[in-house]
Amino acid sequence: MPDFSQHRIKPGQKVDLRKTETDGRSFEPDRDKCEREFRTVREELIELQERLNAESRQKLLVVFQAMDAGGKDGTIRSVFKGVNPQGVSVTAFKKPTEQELSRDFLWRVHMAVPANGMIGVFNRSHYEDVLVVRVHNIVPESVWKPRYDQINQFEELLTQSNTTIIKFFLHIAKKEQKQRFQERLDDPAKHWKFDREDLAKREYWDDYRRAFEDMLEKCSTKSAPWYVIPADQNWYRDYAVCSLLVDILKKMDPKYPTPPDLSDVRIED
Amino acid sequence: MPDFSQHRIKPGQKVDLRKTETDGRSFEPDRDKCEREFRTVREELIELQERLNAESRQKLLVVFQAMDAGGKDGTIRSVFKGVNPQGVSVTAFKKPTEQELSRDFLWRVHMAVPANGMIGVFNRSHYEDVLVVRVHNIVPESVWKPRYDQINQFEELLTQSNTTIIKFFLHIAKKEQKQRFQERLDDPAKHWKFDREDLAKREYWDDYRRAFEDMLEKCSTKSAPWYVIPADQNWYRDYAVCSLLVDILKKMDPKYPTPPDLSDVRIED
Repeated sequence: MPDFSQHRIKPGQKVDLRKTETDGRSFEPDRDKCEREFRTVREELIELQERLNAESRQKLLVVFQAMDAGGKDGTIRSVFKGVNPQGVSVTAFKKPTEQELSRDFLWRVHMAVPANGMIGVFNRSHYEDVLVVRVHNIVPESVWKPRYDQINQFEELLTQSNTTIIKFFLHIAKKEQKQRFQERLDDPAKHWKFDREDLAKREYWDDYRRAFEDMLEKCSTKSAPWYVIPADQNWYRDYAVCSLLVDILKKMDPKYPTPPDLSDVRIED
Repeated sequence: MPDFSQHRIKPGQKVDLRKTETDGRSFEPDRDKCEREFRTVREELIELQERLNAESRQKLLVVFQAMDAGGKDGTIRSVFKGVNPQGVSVTAFKKPTEQELSRDFLWRVHMAVPANGMIGVFNRSHYEDVLVVRVHNIVPESVWKPRYDQINQFEELLTQSNTTIIKFFLHIAKKEQKQRFQERLDDPAKHWKFDREDLAKREYWDDYRRAFEDMLEKCSTKSAPWYVIPADQNWYRDYAVCSLLVDILKKMDPKYPTPPDLSDVRIED
């Protein structure tokens, strides 16, 4: 198993995504092996989630961000396949509604944080407010700039309330994005997935890249680290994400509740 | 495949749960066959949910109620195993909080209804407010009695907003409950699941039974029917629930969105 912790961004580390590997084969070239070990590690995830749920004293928050077609949906589908849906809540953050916009940017996010015993998965997140919002000048710099600190403080609050946080940036090459868009174009069954807006956003690739770099540099803290996952190959990506989730759940070490003394119990007919 | 629609309670039908079968073998004695067909039908469920999600114009609400140890958690775990967790939201309704109690009983339920493209699963539901609440006199009859109509009207509102509703009462025999409690007692690994309160509620079995009968008689409407699923055998129960979900999803007939004309699209490098 590759040492997936190498994908972690250390606090204070400079990030240049152009020099950061998107190709999983550089870390593990054997696809069959990855797929096989992924299935094994997913069984562990299923087991650990059952324990987390039974214990019901702590929770795990998993954040996914990526360029368009970076594989957020696919990762969530394949990593959490088989996990008891009662213990997982997935929130996909879309363009905010008027109601949401008339509060602070963390309002809707706070409402979606996981409860004890749960794994909360964010498909996009509060980080959009320093990504799309920044790149397209939806709010002025004086508003988005303080958000890095606000985010760190918010995540710290969650951490101090028994939430473990792990954040994944799924990193694909620009040419991989092109290929994925092209596949959607070539396959009529996938046309409905194609969004012209995604193509428009592709023209801002470098602006997005810089915004992602800032996010990774400013918000990868000791208690809420970012991982940059090479995501050109789905099989490496899924294996890496799932393994890191299992590692962190093992550290959380959820335990079945101490059984009460039941020696006096008799069940009547 | 047995005709699972026979478990449906027709509007106006009288219900005597003492005379209603809890043994799935009366309908299909072949366990292996059930387990095999269940796996097939679950693949269909996974596929239909993907379509529902892609279409994103309607939603399915699935309600589970049962006596304690009736198998609500187990059914949810096994029927929805493998379904993309991004398309399913499970809400387990516990004892209401003070905040919830200071609103009407449908307030917290309304907040949890599924959005377009989603399957919403209720593990317990607003029906607790005519079950436990009624049996233990938590509110006076003048309060719980009007709730049957209030529930029907609420469900009608959901139905008229593109929600399809299906409700399952998992029906176990009193001796089957005893056996399940006993298994939890005999296996120290399951002690933490044992709740003395469940045992106290067992003494009210007949009161609960009557409350369930009323619920089934008064609230099985054409658009939001109740099914009484024989649930002594998990393998029959899971197969029946999953098949009925697939039937209803087929009737909903979710379609992939009409693909836009993309013939002019070129992706730049």
